[in-house]
Amino acid sequence: MPVNLSVPNPSDLHPVPGVQLGITMAGVRKANRRDLTVITLDEGSAVAGVFTKNRYCAAPVQLCRERLAAGSEIRALVINTGNANAGTGEDGLVRARATCIALARQLSISPEQILPFSTGVIMETLPVDRIEAGLPGAIADLKPDNWAAAAEGIMTTDTLPKAASRQITLGGVTVTVTGISKGAGMIRPNMATMLGYVATDANIRPDLLQALVTEAANVSFNRITIDGDTSTNDSFVLMASRKAAHAEITDLDSAEGRALREAVIAVSQHLAQAIVRDGEGATKFIAITVEGGRTEDECAKAAYAIAHSPLVKTAFFASDPNLGRILAAVGYAGIDDLDQNLIELHLDDVHVVTKGGRNPSYREEDGQRVMKQSEITIRVGLNRGTAKTTVWTCDLSHDYVSINADYRS
Amino acid sequence: MPVNLSVPNPSDLHPVPGVQLGITMAGVRKANRRDLTVITLDEGSAVAGVFTKNRYCAAPVQLCRERLAAGSEIRALVINTGNANAGTGEDGLVRARATCIALARQLSISPEQILPFSTGVIMETLPVDRIEAGLPGAIADLKPDNWAAAAEGIMTTDTLPKAASRQITLGGVTVTVTGISKGAGMIRPNMATMLGYVATDANIRPDLLQALVTEAANVSFNRITIDGDTSTNDSFVLMASRKAAHAEITDLDSAEGRALREAVIAVSQHLAQAIVRDGEGATKFIAITVEGGRTEDECAKAAYAIAHSPLVKTAFFASDPNLGRILAAVGYAGIDDLDQNLIELHLDDVHVVTKGGRNPSYREEDGQRVMKQSEITIRVGLNRGTAKTTVWTCDLSHDYVSINADYRS
Repeated sequence: MPVNLSVPNPSDLHPVPGVQLGITMAGVRKANRRDLTVITLDEGSAVAGVFTKNRYCAAPVQLCRERLAAGSEIRALVINTGNANAGTGEDGLVRARATCIALARQLSISPEQILPFSTGVIMETLPVDRIEAGLPGAIADLKPDNWAAAAEGIMTTDTLPKAASRQITLGGVTVTVTGISKGAGMIRPNMATMLGYVATDANIRPDLLQALVTEAANVSFNRITIDGDTSTNDSFVLMASRKAAHAEITDLDSAEGRALREAVIAVSQHLAQAIVRDGEGATKFIAITVEGGRTEDECAKAAYAIAHSPLVKTAFFASDPNLGRILAAVGYAGIDDLDQNLIELHLDDVHVVTKGGRNPSYREEDGQRVMKQSEITIRVGLNRGTAKTTVWTCDLSHDYVSINADYRS
Repeated sequence: MPVNLSVPNPSDLHPVPGVQLGITMAGVRKANRRDLTVITLDEGSAVAGVFTKNRYCAAPVQLCRERLAAGSEIRALVINTGNANAGTGEDGLVRARATCIALARQLSISPEQILPFSTGVIMETLPVDRIEAGLPGAIADLKPDNWAAAAEGIMTTDTLPKAASRQITLGGVTVTVTGISKGAGMIRPNMATMLGYVATDANIRPDLLQALVTEAANVSFNRITIDGDTSTNDSFVLMASRKAAHAEITDLDSAEGRALREAVIAVSQHLAQAIVRDGEGATKFIAITVEGGRTEDECAKAAYAIAHSPLVKTAFFASDPNLGRILAAVGYAGIDDLDQNLIELHLDDVHVVTKGGRNPSYREEDGQRVMKQSEITIRVGLNRGTAKTTVWTCDLSHDYVSINADYRS
């Protein structure tokens, strides 16, 4: 029951020169399921990433951080589903390294040039033997037009694969930005979500990539939440093969730099919103804008308080305009000197609350009309400044409980 | 489906000399429901309270704060269910004052001597006319042995009334502590929960009462959570009629002071835990102890992260020992320099995690055995200090979604 989301059309997903993807069935957790993905990058590529801020971060996340910080020239990514390799202590690190060593041998590169990723159940031992046995199949499948299959290969409780692609023209040359993501529960990314991968052939100076991936994460994956549970494995990676024949981008604020930023952000937002649309049990897609704050941080606090409130989320599931629950969430969001008498609340175009109380002209049937839609915008005005931000989330339904009560069975 | 909670036996609820309670049907929201309660206190009583820290606090909470701060001699409390009188702006304050004025006239006291309380739906207009019309019936019902009826009279989505009573001997004299509480959703009190009332006839110096109510709240109502939603109306009030014939308590650390503190805390913890046992949709009662922290505050952060995680709560509902979700919650609790390799986790007597990874001797069937119980203790060791705290919560079930999707209908 994803909200206004459909299977990406493979022909809409433009290959990125210099990037190949291969997918296979390794039986990590379940048989007959494509659960192992390898992505290779031609020489001369640049890679940057942002990772979970969960202090209990997974073993592969620790290796990714280490390798990117060391400035290794990354040439491959290996991604398994079915097992998160998190909460696995020292043994988890050994197993993540073993996966990279096996792949490095087969690709004739060094293990330090590989970024490993895992997603699935926490606190279970990674079956390295099965992953190793699957690698030749993934390598044999490597090709540039494999993005749709890779989007499927990284799914866990997702009901649909998530992918997006854009083409722009830089210096008269066509440049591609294509990406995939997954995630349906344990979603409140704090830096990025497990898992997002965006690749481009844009010729961008490698040291600009980290700023670009951070900027894109902050307005996409870092602004979505499903259940408030920040994953142990969140990872968002931006890869640039730098194959495009335009002049190298050396400034993100140049015309070409801005065009690339916009394309990367558009793809990232599409991928992040797709995760919410496919949120576990989601029946509504909800955009929460908080404006008139003193800082973006306090706007985010209020927006996340609304987005995480089980009472708000169940009211949306029921299409019940029990909108006082939104006010309560704003009130406990942690803005210590908030004046409740200045609060305004709109639901789409319906003006529900003014000066902290019910708007005299608000009619319940107007609220009801909006609540029944599949896409809803909540707009809260704090009236104490000029900052604003938007967070995307979904409702809380019976299916969320069913999915998470049964996840491992 | 409350967890190990039953209707209090009226004969176990000792009357408190100097305190009377009266309950009636006022039709605030629904007909044929006892929804209006009046509590009166004899002259010479002392009252202290703690209230929600939600910045969007209800009109009656604002009046309570104002009157207690002004040092008014409180002689009566008036409590309605069915309407929270929150998110109602200036008009809500006018209506809360009108309720007090009407009651003051009938009791021949001043409106400033009355504390008003409301609980129910947010952002609806308080029907003062119906409450005024109900007051004579509540006053006619006033009597000391009416605690069980009052416990029913303050319920909203509660399935059972909540009350507790203790008797102690101070200076050879029998002293009573009796209290009631309500609450089943929008429960993550931040100072206290809507609604808790505890009365004693102990002869305590009035200026000690605020310290006592704060201490009791901090280890009872301020340590429970159902859905993380801090209510707009949380109020916890301690009343002392000071009728008991022992020498006045002038020091909370004297032998008599300590005995009274223990009795008040015991009654408060019973009432707070009863709210969790009757949590909306609850099927399990879960105590979460986090120890080995540097501060109690960081222990509480970790305990609340676990207690609020929808993934942890649904796993408990399913009796599924998917315990990595607990580690993930500890990891994102906001303890910035947490070392995951020091974490220990016990489920009752079962040692699940050691040094941050799965304990080699942990067997899934042992976790499964504990998860099937109706009362479960989670114990997390941070191994970085000596502070500890305990938070009580419940699981997240289909019934929570049903109850909150249908609450107003």
